[in-house]
Amino acid sequence: MESELIAWLREHLPPHPLLRLGAGDDAAVLDMARTDQCVVTVDLLTDGVDFLLEEADARRVGRKCLAVNLSDIAAMAARPMAAVIALALPREGGMRLAVELYEGLLPLAEEFDLAIAGGDTNAWDGPLAVSITVLGQVTDRGPLRRGDANSGDRILVTGSLGGSILGRHFDFQPRVKEALLLAERYDLSAGIDISDGLSIDLSRLAAESGLGAELTAETIPISDAARRFAEKLSDGSAPLEHALCDGEDFELLLAAPPREAARILNDQPLAVPITDIGRFTDEPGLRQTTADGTTTPLQPRGWEHKFD
Amino acid sequence: MESELIAWLREHLPPHPLLRLGAGDDAAVLDMARTDQCVVTVDLLTDGVDFLLEEADARRVGRKCLAVNLSDIAAMAARPMAAVIALALPREGGMRLAVELYEGLLPLAEEFDLAIAGGDTNAWDGPLAVSITVLGQVTDRGPLRRGDANSGDRILVTGSLGGSILGRHFDFQPRVKEALLLAERYDLSAGIDISDGLSIDLSRLAAESGLGAELTAETIPISDAARRFAEKLSDGSAPLEHALCDGEDFELLLAAPPREAARILNDQPLAVPITDIGRFTDEPGLRQTTADGTTTPLQPRGWEHKFD
Repeated sequence: MESELIAWLREHLPPHPLLRLGAGDDAAVLDMARTDQCVVTVDLLTDGVDFLLEEADARRVGRKCLAVNLSDIAAMAARPMAAVIALALPREGGMRLAVELYEGLLPLAEEFDLAIAGGDTNAWDGPLAVSITVLGQVTDRGPLRRGDANSGDRILVTGSLGGSILGRHFDFQPRVKEALLLAERYDLSAGIDISDGLSIDLSRLAAESGLGAELTAETIPISDAARRFAEKLSDGSAPLEHALCDGEDFELLLAAPPREAARILNDQPLAVPITDIGRFTDEPGLRQTTADGTTTPLQPRGWEHKFD
Repeated sequence: MESELIAWLREHLPPHPLLRLGAGDDAAVLDMARTDQCVVTVDLLTDGVDFLLEEADARRVGRKCLAVNLSDIAAMAARPMAAVIALALPREGGMRLAVELYEGLLPLAEEFDLAIAGGDTNAWDGPLAVSITVLGQVTDRGPLRRGDANSGDRILVTGSLGGSILGRHFDFQPRVKEALLLAERYDLSAGIDISDGLSIDLSRLAAESGLGAELTAETIPISDAARRFAEKLSDGSAPLEHALCDGEDFELLLAAPPREAARILNDQPLAVPITDIGRFTDEPGLRQTTADGTTTPLQPRGWEHKFD
């Protein structure tokens, strides 16, 4: 029953300094006194698309549903503040499922000092759907946008890419702290998180900035998972293709002026590697340069929701 | 396709002074410079529970999905600021459906000067699910909470109750302006919106304040729809029962000290009537007094999501 779950939530959602009023009223009340600008993002994840509840531990599902939102906050180089969580639960086993979803996401909220400001709980005859909205505080450096890259900027990426379907799409670490550190110490031009695939998300950032981009193929950091996935599929796909086109890496893709990029690469200030994989160009579209020096057009591919 | 819908949204979502950055980036950016405290609320509405897409115009569905959130903002006596909208669309006809949902909710957003800060669009094999999160600005009077009613406070209600299933659950007017006006001019103790039914929402407000409540049965404003619905059902249910237990009235239920309540009743400052329907008591639980002077316990009944 809804009332039981609300009682559970009021007992298990921790207090937070930003929360003037938590779960249990018609709305939560958040302290915004020190926040000039806030970012707001929502992601709705569904059974059968973003996870398979039959196969996955509901705690990992809950964690992922929050983590993808934190990755959007990271993409803006903002500081996470608070989240509200809406659930459409299957009627059978809905109570246990809801508790497990929360058990999975609460430790992540604590890790990122995020207030859980309540939410909405529904039951229906459909599959599980989880919608989480996260608010973040814009820092003094302002939000990191998609549209502010300049021609000549270097393309930087954190971590390694591809094959997240083998497990990392559940357990990835949202790059919130990394984005905050980079935005504070260096002059970044623009940023996005790689949620749908390197090539498609790069094409979005470039297009938003009115630019194109040229990737240096051999510098793209290919993950071990991408290699294993290519091998497993044995469909002739190369690990590089997975790094370029697989979704859900949730790494940062950044634009930085060449001098700033060189400083970042030299400092390597994060626990995770940062790699220079190319540059933004006035010429629109994506291209890739291979080791033999040839440059070819690159068709952006990645995850996109299909409906008509 | 998702990209088509995003293009449509970027063309059709109007600018708003609070929106520093609208749809199209990883998150929207909102101006919070003049906001000390904000309220945040989320509601997830689903096909088969909150509406029947087969029978309803999708524009009315879209309007309702936003209106229920505005009603929560009204319950806190806050000023609407911005909304983000997440959709889980069926794959077939999803594009047209999404456009119609937005066509239904955009005029309501405009009416309440609400910024639409973007959202998230997904397709899946499940039925339509719509999750909207609304942010509101707390006024100088502070948020109107559920837990601050006092023993002896009068119970006030706007409008008339019951039978909303006959149509008003789509077309109701969120009582945002009414709540702001009342909270500014009068000392209200507590408030809630009647979303699940008068008796159950009153029991929640009373319990949250550590109180009980006594309703004067003959003063409860019964809507024409409640009468028509009772007649239509011909199950022996009285119109009063519908006023007490039907969900989705989305009227305001308020607690006010007797002198303030008398002023409000005398002034009748709203276009919609305000009625005194009883008082809060130290004795817990709900009771109703009938015209013959007998007082009997009243079991709170109303809408609750059922799952196990």
